[in-house]
Amino acid sequence: MKTLIKGGTIVTAYEEYQGDILIEDEKIVQLGEKLDVTADKVIDATGKFVFPGGVDQHTHYDAQGTVGDENTAGYETTDNAIVGGTTTFIEFVPQEPGMGLIDSAEYRKEHRAKGKICVDFALHALVTDVKPSLFEEVKQLPAHGISTIKVFTAYPGSYLHADDGTLLRILENGKEVGVTTFVHAENGEIIEFLRDEFVRNGKTSPKYHYLSRPPVSEAEAVRKVIYLAQSVDAPIMIVHMTCREALEELKASGYAKAYGETCTHYMLTTKEVLDDPDFFKSGHYICSPALREKEDNEALWQAAADGAITVIASDHCGISMKMKSPGKDDFTKVPNGAPGAGDRINMIWTNGVVTGKISRKKFVELCATNPAKFNGIYPRKGHIAIGSDADIVIFDPDYRGIVRNEDNPNGIDYNVFEGREQIGRPQTVLLRGQVVVENGKFTGVKGQGEFIPASPFGACYTGL
Amino acid sequence: MKTLIKGGTIVTAYEEYQGDILIEDEKIVQLGEKLDVTADKVIDATGKFVFPGGVDQHTHYDAQGTVGDENTAGYETTDNAIVGGTTTFIEFVPQEPGMGLIDSAEYRKEHRAKGKICVDFALHALVTDVKPSLFEEVKQLPAHGISTIKVFTAYPGSYLHADDGTLLRILENGKEVGVTTFVHAENGEIIEFLRDEFVRNGKTSPKYHYLSRPPVSEAEAVRKVIYLAQSVDAPIMIVHMTCREALEELKASGYAKAYGETCTHYMLTTKEVLDDPDFFKSGHYICSPALREKEDNEALWQAAADGAITVIASDHCGISMKMKSPGKDDFTKVPNGAPGAGDRINMIWTNGVVTGKISRKKFVELCATNPAKFNGIYPRKGHIAIGSDADIVIFDPDYRGIVRNEDNPNGIDYNVFEGREQIGRPQTVLLRGQVVVENGKFTGVKGQGEFIPASPFGACYTGL
Amino acid sequence: MKTLIKGGTIVTAYEEYQGDILIEDEKIVQLGEKLDVTADKVIDATGKFVFPGGVDQHTHYDAQGTVGDENTAGYETTDNAIVGGTTTFIEFVPQEPGMGLIDSAEYRKEHRAKGKICVDFALHALVTDVKPSLFEEVKQLPAHGISTIKVFTAYPGSYLHADDGTLLRILENGKEVGVTTFVHAENGEIIEFLRDEFVRNGKTSPKYHYLSRPPVSEAEAVRKVIYLAQSVDAPIMIVHMTCREALEELKASGYAKAYGETCTHYMLTTKEVLDDPDFFKSGHYICSPALREKEDNEALWQAAADGAITVIASDHCGISMKMKSPGKDDFTKVPNGAPGAGDRINMIWTNGVVTGKISRKKFVELCATNPAKFNGIYPRKGHIAIGSDADIVIFDPDYRGIVRNEDNPNGIDYNVFEGREQIGRPQTVLLRGQVVVENGKFTGVKGQGEFIPASPFGACYTGL
Amino acid sequence: MKTLIKGGTIVTAYEEYQGDILIEDEKIVQLGEKLDVTADKVIDATGKFVFPGGVDQHTHYDAQGTVGDENTAGYETTDNAIVGGTTTFIEFVPQEPGMGLIDSAEYRKEHRAKGKICVDFALHALVTDVKPSLFEEVKQLPAHGISTIKVFTAYPGSYLHADDGTLLRILENGKEVGVTTFVHAENGEIIEFLRDEFVRNGKTSPKYHYLSRPPVSEAEAVRKVIYLAQSVDAPIMIVHMTCREALEELKASGYAKAYGETCTHYMLTTKEVLDDPDFFKSGHYICSPALREKEDNEALWQAAADGAITVIASDHCGISMKMKSPGKDDFTKVPNGAPGAGDRINMIWTNGVVTGKISRKKFVELCATNPAKFNGIYPRKGHIAIGSDADIVIFDPDYRGIVRNEDNPNGIDYNVFEGREQIGRPQTVLLRGQVVVENGKFTGVKGQGEFIPASPFGACYTGL
Repeated sequence: MKTLIKGGTIVTAYEEYQGDILIEDEKIVQLGEKLDVTADKVIDATGKFVFPGGVDQHTHYDAQGTVGDENTAGYETTDNAIVGGTTTFIEFVPQEPGMGLIDSAEYRKEHRAKGKICVDFALHALVTDVKPSLFEEVKQLPAHGISTIKVFTAYPGSYLHADDGTLLRILENGKEVGVTTFVHAENGEIIEFLRDEFVRNGKTSPKYHYLSRPPVSEAEAVRKVIYLAQSVDAPIMIVHMTCREALEELKASGYAKAYGETCTHYMLTTKEVLDDPDFFKSGHYICSPALREKEDNEALWQAAADGAITVIASDHCGISMKMKSPGKDDFTKVPNGAPGAGDRINMIWTNGVVTGKISRKKFVELCATNPAKFNGIYPRKGHIAIGSDADIVIFDPDYRGIVRNEDNPNGIDYNVFEGREQIGRPQTVLLRGQVVVENGKFTGVKGQGEFIPASPFGACYTGL
Repeated sequence: MKTLIKGGTIVTAYEEYQGDILIEDEKIVQLGEKLDVTADKVIDATGKFVFPGGVDQHTHYDAQGTVGDENTAGYETTDNAIVGGTTTFIEFVPQEPGMGLIDSAEYRKEHRAKGKICVDFALHALVTDVKPSLFEEVKQLPAHGISTIKVFTAYPGSYLHADDGTLLRILENGKEVGVTTFVHAENGEIIEFLRDEFVRNGKTSPKYHYLSRPPVSEAEAVRKVIYLAQSVDAPIMIVHMTCREALEELKASGYAKAYGETCTHYMLTTKEVLDDPDFFKSGHYICSPALREKEDNEALWQAAADGAITVIASDHCGISMKMKSPGKDDFTKVPNGAPGAGDRINMIWTNGVVTGKISRKKFVELCATNPAKFNGIYPRKGHIAIGSDADIVIFDPDYRGIVRNEDNPNGIDYNVFEGREQIGRPQTVLLRGQVVVENGKFTGVKGQGEFIPASPFGACYTGL
Repeated sequence: MKTLIKGGTIVTAYEEYQGDILIEDEKIVQLGEKLDVTADKVIDATGKFVFPGGVDQHTHYDAQGTVGDENTAGYETTDNAIVGGTTTFIEFVPQEPGMGLIDSAEYRKEHRAKGKICVDFALHALVTDVKPSLFEEVKQLPAHGISTIKVFTAYPGSYLHADDGTLLRILENGKEVGVTTFVHAENGEIIEFLRDEFVRNGKTSPKYHYLSRPPVSEAEAVRKVIYLAQSVDAPIMIVHMTCREALEELKASGYAKAYGETCTHYMLTTKEVLDDPDFFKSGHYICSPALREKEDNEALWQAAADGAITVIASDHCGISMKMKSPGKDDFTKVPNGAPGAGDRINMIWTNGVVTGKISRKKFVELCATNPAKFNGIYPRKGHIAIGSDADIVIFDPDYRGIVRNEDNPNGIDYNVFEGREQIGRPQTVLLRGQVVVENGKFTGVKGQGEFIPASPFGACYTGL
Repeated sequence: MKTLIKGGTIVTAYEEYQGDILIEDEKIVQLGEKLDVTADKVIDATGKFVFPGGVDQHTHYDAQGTVGDENTAGYETTDNAIVGGTTTFIEFVPQEPGMGLIDSAEYRKEHRAKGKICVDFALHALVTDVKPSLFEEVKQLPAHGISTIKVFTAYPGSYLHADDGTLLRILENGKEVGVTTFVHAENGEIIEFLRDEFVRNGKTSPKYHYLSRPPVSEAEAVRKVIYLAQSVDAPIMIVHMTCREALEELKASGYAKAYGETCTHYMLTTKEVLDDPDFFKSGHYICSPALREKEDNEALWQAAADGAITVIASDHCGISMKMKSPGKDDFTKVPNGAPGAGDRINMIWTNGVVTGKISRKKFVELCATNPAKFNGIYPRKGHIAIGSDADIVIFDPDYRGIVRNEDNPNGIDYNVFEGREQIGRPQTVLLRGQVVVENGKFTGVKGQGEFIPASPFGACYTGL
């Protein structure tokens, strides 16, 4: 089966040119200014941009069970992401009750994702049950196609918390085999203290969510995890960075193996949305870390442009308002998180590329290429090159619309970007050579997504 | 009652001259090259150095009850300190069971120290029971003559641990009223992790004490507490600094309101003493932070000389081997701490002044003047000046001896400096004008010590 | 005219795959796993690596006249570079006597390079006559296809010296139009002082060359130029970095727009070669900055691998021993510089890739792609992609040889890599689609090189 | 001869108490709450503060000849300083034409100061003729009672400029013998460049003086000199710091042996005074570095309070308007400098102590004690202690007045503090036991000042 995409403007992280792409079965096999070949299927991309499919390195689907009351939308809703131009996830694998890292990953692949997931995916181990066996498991991860592991510094006293000793040992053991450590860096003690204080004083509306997670709680944790990583010369990826203070610490460290991710909503949205007295509006935005100021949005765009931030992810976590509403009168009872996998590509294009904040090549780099590199799946994913998987977005820059959850449902009852202007959209999307989106609608088959084994020694080790 | 000390070489932090001191009752009233006055008592100090009495800002007496199994030597043993040239303590006040900071301080004064303590003393509040009422109490401390408060960052999960939110609020509230926050800075999570790991692997001899408290655990905490203090522009005193890595963080911070203390044993002793297979030798040296390398000793002397370290204290904690021996086969069961209040002055003189590492004036500054300044009791204590308390050490530089606990008993069954060479000693000591040591023997009255109310806004606020 | 390169392993900075390249006239028009096309010429690259032609951003040919007694080898010798796998230079344009930056560039193109130069080339303006008109000229550079300007901080009192005020104004004016400032960063005052002192003391053999240029003289200048650039938010490229101290300053600055280059000889050679009493050996190595220690070599390799160093250039300056020999008895009279354009690719491959210090992709990045990006000629140069110039090296990894100047003459009478082992070599080289090297011998036409206009806002502005 | 000062409030850098001082001949021999002694002369200081005489470490008298057209007021005008409460100078010794450092110092003592100078004085060597013999002379300075040497980094091309190599060698040689290097830290190349540019554009009014000396030119030089000093582990005193950017560099360095001085006018005056179109007003304020912003004034007060700045000097340079007026239409022709030795104490008291910005003890520390310590004349000068010289200021805090040059003439035709409010004044001043000021008027004898030999290894070596 051969597919020819003709006449588009191909944009990768490194080049931009008018050209054709020939796909044979799942792979890209030819690129050219004009390919004079016959194909089973020809797609005219004239006037369109042709990108590699988006890679989202930070998603949480089907987190029920382990993550307590965070019953999140499941893998059957991942068509939302693919319609939004993302063809690969690196999904987090919280430990299943009583299971280790590797068994949890196997279980997730076979029993949770299989038959439902619409995008290809690699996996991050995610520590949610600190125990000694963990550390040996870290060394086994690459043999199971997993090259990344995430820990939370926040949430002391909960199953999510990984203490600094655990973090250090994971850094050390991971480094031996090329595993990269991802860290949710917030100082949980400060946050818990402030939460308790607010609750004690009856201050429980959503605005106290952000007031209990001040920038210092993020910046301090960022400083710390970089320092610990540097102390053992191990790489570190700091996920969902949100504020100037934290960026400052990342830059000031001068540590070559520390990298930072931010997420769409931290670039577009400010904390004022949490001041809305209607919980069924403000509650959407309860996520952690918390939303920040306009100046922080701008600092993140600047950092994305100048290289201090190297990935934009979604931190998709499909927690419905039904699940959040028990915390209506007490923000501390609201599970943290919001969806976003389906909106990332469109929102970053609209608010970043169209506005000139970042170039098209930088957009591809941040949303597809770099995450593939950090996670050991490049150049199979995240690039348009000979031999790469034919995961391709044909993007119509002339589309104009408004974000509406009903148009590309994310499986839950709200979208934090609802009502925003959208410029451009993925018109056609291919996953491993198959057309799975046409005219902006999912035409694929649920369950088509495959597990992509990740290679160790990703870009945090080697540089981008 | 007038006392005249004649013909000595008076050494203060700022000057050194041949001169006489006239004391009237408790105060110094005249200084002169030659005072031609009549006095009730005349002490000939010819050939001697005349210092202000030592001020030890870090002592833990009578810590039983609250501090669990750390049944420490009581105030009746403080004659040991005064024989060793120290006339003032700033004692820590762990919270009595169920009591707040202030009530605990009152109780300590009236029911623990009174009638027993031989030195004058001020008090540090010491947080051992984190609860909301604490924060208002911080603001009341100065009214009760207390200007300092200490927290432990280490020991997570125990009553000793103060979380970072608590620390921040104490820094903020303290700053309003001039209270200075002292911090025991160790990363408890790293330490607990390593201890657990060693125990799990059957590694329980004393050497694992230091291996479970590596320099990174201290340096990381030092970085953090300075960062937090700086974030709210509050002063901070980091107690018992031990290693190069931690000093580096202190210096690199460039934060004008951060100061560091070290203790005698961290300057003189190295971790190898913990390798002795005889627990009844190695067990003496189980204290926290742990002992370090020779290079760290030297770095501390250098820092003391060049101003990076501004106080030398004892961290006296009179835990007997009887109390330590339950941990004979498991270092994690050994209460941490060792005595030292009686040896500080002699050991620093012998190993610092005699060797030329620090000058005599610097010696007085580090061991008497600076701690008085940091703790709001200067110039009443820590100086020889008109109006100061007549706490005076007449020091014989020609004395030669060997440290023996039996010669100046500290109330427990070992001395970590036992057997070391000693050059010079306090021959005569006066406390508020009264001779309390003669010929190196205590001649005072137990219980003679008085509470000295401290003023807020000590030297961490104002600079030295 | 179509040329097909078949069956090689194509290596770019971003990908490595088995594949074919179709060239039509001067451009790459197709890439594919297997291209089933007819071509006028087919080159079998089976068992070979296929790289983009090397880009050398730091060369000084034909520097006579302006640069005083530094009569260097001229453009007719650039076949040496192309045989060595480099197809593009960014050549420095010292100001011709009495001319401005732009006229000098035009003169160089038309009267110096034309008809002789064998490689394509872009140009750096090079300040050798500081005068007010310079600053307006900076703003005109992009209109003339020049996007970079170099200044020397060293050589106070000579025509080469640019004072810090001049540097600042160039940074400011350059920034307005996207010109990138390159800096030779050495503290000339320190160097002149030490030279004078050595000369005064009769210490004039070549070893005093390196002793008069100690690491502090480089590191201080690196600190300064980064600070000045950062003070006006302008980008800066620090050329020929050589030592740990300087690298440390680059890393510690945390300034996103500061980048560093090193050169082949600083990675391979140590200062001991200057100790040879035979000037006709040691004199080869008199270049500035001076050669350093083994540990510096290693630090440079590490920096190249981890991203602190982003370009490897040659700093080719073909000064013959005849020109150097007047300084036989006085190193200060030796014009500084040595050839290297023809050896860079082979020496970096042999000593970096073969040894595992850097990957093949990193090799391409450092030696071709990044310099093209920094200098505004990417993706036309430095990459193998659709639409790029067909500058291609077909590299035989199985070749074994010894570097001999007679085998690939550089136009002068020595080669600083003479006698070194060489593994692999460019077997065939194409320049804009024309085969110019076959079997490791130049088969092109002298004068075939073309001027490549550079675009402003290169990678120092945008990130790599 | 005995003098008794009774009943004042004695304020030193370290203590403040009601007390009496007994002076015998030139020295302080007794201090006491009440001294019951007979004396030849009794001075009632009731209601007054009693300070040590001020020490001004930065004065330029009688700079004619060597310093070209900077014909400054001579030593016969130093009664102005003593009336202003300063009893000791450390005077700069520019090299006399053709002379070395030591001969110049001898000449200055014997032929310039002798018979005229009214204050005691030590001397700084001042490099104004860089030549090799200098470096050996540095090592001889202590033997001649000189422990400090100053260099200018500014003024390239002039006799005042010391190149960085010279600075490094002075730092190295000075360190061997305890000489402390003082540096005027401005980047002369930036300044010259901007001056030339302004002149070329006809911008020659006094405001271009400060525009040609922007903060970056000071901050860059401060960074550099600290870096160079640190590279050879030598102490450094940075004189006349003026701005936030420079302070930031001093603090960020974390270098224990780097200290900073500021001067009265940088704390009180802002650059707007240079905007006055009347040169006979604005011209007063042409000094280097230039005046800064209000925020800089405040930053300097803050730094003085918190210890980042450790000395306040005057940088007195008595250049008359007659001497300045040739530059009426071209600021580059105005010799830089202004008087201030007579105003320092009063202005700092009025604007610093009365306003609560610094304490009385800090005032004494900054204006008398610290400069004595840095310059090796403490505790003979700068302190009230047994054995110190009886240089004493009896200060009336109740005095109210306005600064008028006619009331305390500085020997030239303007005073940069003219018309300012003054609170308090030295009512009585003693120099080595002799009353030399009564009721605010000079009653001493011109020429009474003596040379005070300085000891090496001052406070930049030992800490304060």
